[in-house]
Amino acid sequence: MTALVACAPARRNEPAPRLAPIAIVVHGGAGTIRREQMTPERAAALRRDLETAVRAGYAILASGGSSLDAVEAAVRVLEDSPLFNAGRGAVLTADGTVELDASIMDGAAFRAGAVASVRTVKNPIHLARLVMERTPHVLLVGDGAERFAREMGVEIVDPDYFITPERRQQWERLRARPPADDADAAAAFGTVGAVALDRQGRLAAATSTGGTMNKRPGRVGDSPIIGAGTYANRRCAVSATGAGEFFIRNAVAYDICARMEYLGQSIEAAARAVVLEKLAAQGGDGGVIALDARGRMAMPFNTPGMYRAWAGPDGRVEVRFYRDED
Amino acid sequence: MTALVACAPARRNEPAPRLAPIAIVVHGGAGTIRREQMTPERAAALRRDLETAVRAGYAILASGGSSLDAVEAAVRVLEDSPLFNAGRGAVLTADGTVELDASIMDGAAFRAGAVASVRTVKNPIHLARLVMERTPHVLLVGDGAERFAREMGVEIVDPDYFITPERRQQWERLRARPPADDADAAAAFGTVGAVALDRQGRLAAATSTGGTMNKRPGRVGDSPIIGAGTYANRRCAVSATGAGEFFIRNAVAYDICARMEYLGQSIEAAARAVVLEKLAAQGGDGGVIALDARGRMAMPFNTPGMYRAWAGPDGRVEVRFYRDED
Repeated sequence: MTALVACAPARRNEPAPRLAPIAIVVHGGAGTIRREQMTPERAAALRRDLETAVRAGYAILASGGSSLDAVEAAVRVLEDSPLFNAGRGAVLTADGTVELDASIMDGAAFRAGAVASVRTVKNPIHLARLVMERTPHVLLVGDGAERFAREMGVEIVDPDYFITPERRQQWERLRARPPADDADAAAAFGTVGAVALDRQGRLAAATSTGGTMNKRPGRVGDSPIIGAGTYANRRCAVSATGAGEFFIRNAVAYDICARMEYLGQSIEAAARAVVLEKLAAQGGDGGVIALDARGRMAMPFNTPGMYRAWAGPDGRVEVRFYRDED
Repeated sequence: MTALVACAPARRNEPAPRLAPIAIVVHGGAGTIRREQMTPERAAALRRDLETAVRAGYAILASGGSSLDAVEAAVRVLEDSPLFNAGRGAVLTADGTVELDASIMDGAAFRAGAVASVRTVKNPIHLARLVMERTPHVLLVGDGAERFAREMGVEIVDPDYFITPERRQQWERLRARPPADDADAAAAFGTVGAVALDRQGRLAAATSTGGTMNKRPGRVGDSPIIGAGTYANRRCAVSATGAGEFFIRNAVAYDICARMEYLGQSIEAAARAVVLEKLAAQGGDGGVIALDARGRMAMPFNTPGMYRAWAGPDGRVEVRFYRDED
């Protein structure tokens, strides 16, 4: 009998749904956020869009929806906002074009999807989800990803849709004054992401980005790399933002989950060890948002600020920009 | 003084070079290798090219060269061989074209480079190394990677160079008889890779592939993903081959290194746990080659065979195809 049970579909063996403490965390990038350069109007707009993203995801969770739907909905809000470096408002490549990357992972079903270097897909996070759900693949890049988008009938936009006047000006300033090194060029962070836990105890994570300002066309950072920028399993969900190459070399998102599993660390201890110790020691600027299956959140960053917002079981939305806020 | 020492370049703190037991392991893919379908001529040719790859890398190590040079040299031999699914002899996409992926990691310097979806670069592993050494990036894809190749002056070939008559026939057979599922299409493994340890105790890993037969254009598997198909640090070096999507979701190459660090497992125990337990339980076919800083090798696979060859300190080259060989 034991053998028969073991061979039955995994679904049969799952416990009856438990009511987990729903939670969602979003980020809008980590980097040098200077209070003195922040106008009240810009702060209010950033706060509004981060709150809208959390509420979009939270509404799904509160009505019994999936964490997968919640993280996609939250990231779509931030992709559609011109204030973040993802979807509309993405940074420009050295060619003055936009190349977008995104990934999503369903921790309960242990599925993942990602796209890199797409140019006309309005919501790359949605295309990443379709890669996960409609293909046997995890990652599609470039022209092949564009072709898949058209097969799927997702919303296609003119590449100019993504480019805001602010981003064009930032790019022109950067081009006029060649940066001292590539670290300067990479300073324009603003990747977005979300992690969520639903009432069934399922975790999910999603990340979307335009990459780094003035990047070499074809450069892909950690955001669409499962294990680096995004990871989720039954134990934890992570979305990262920062100097992507460091996050790839350190397999940051997976490493946080591995530390929980292998070292027995809490989500907070694991996330802090990776971001504040390992990455910081290497000069890898950035941060993560992370969530465990009990709804405990961690959002460490080693930069002056990280745009972040969250809501736990009570539904109250909190928003923070800087390190020294309460 | 302590603070001064701590701030000095890491190089200053490194111990004087020790004479490590040099070692190199290569693979030419894991999958269903059937003895009854193997002709003596084909077996001899496979054996010859695997041996040539090991000897190319070993010669570098024996003369005091770096593990990084050794893995690149070994992988170049296998890319140039028409018998493996990398470089010349790569499988065809659903469009009848070739799209190549490769990655390399220098475990001592903790640097990495990778390219995905390139179509005209004779040796993708060399381009991956140039991404590591000549850019601040880890991963370049598609047209941007092709442009970088031209900037670097690497050898460019006509896309037809890669396509052998055998691969064209395999592709035509596959197209004529639609596979029952994508697993069938993915059955044509043959990714190549190498891991090496040099006299200075430095580990390196490299992987190169044409992906899966009849793949959707733009599909990228684990081979160019640092942490999935390739990983190296001061402790271990891993190159993987198999059903790429499973290897990405499980961050296979990094996970083996993480188990050594966090669980104190040997390279053999860590590699076996990931390949024979974790991946096998999910149906993730494939294998890895792995090497630790003491020259201990592991090469577990959960498929009927894996083309593999190696040489340790005595320089004797061993070649194996199947599971039950001595």
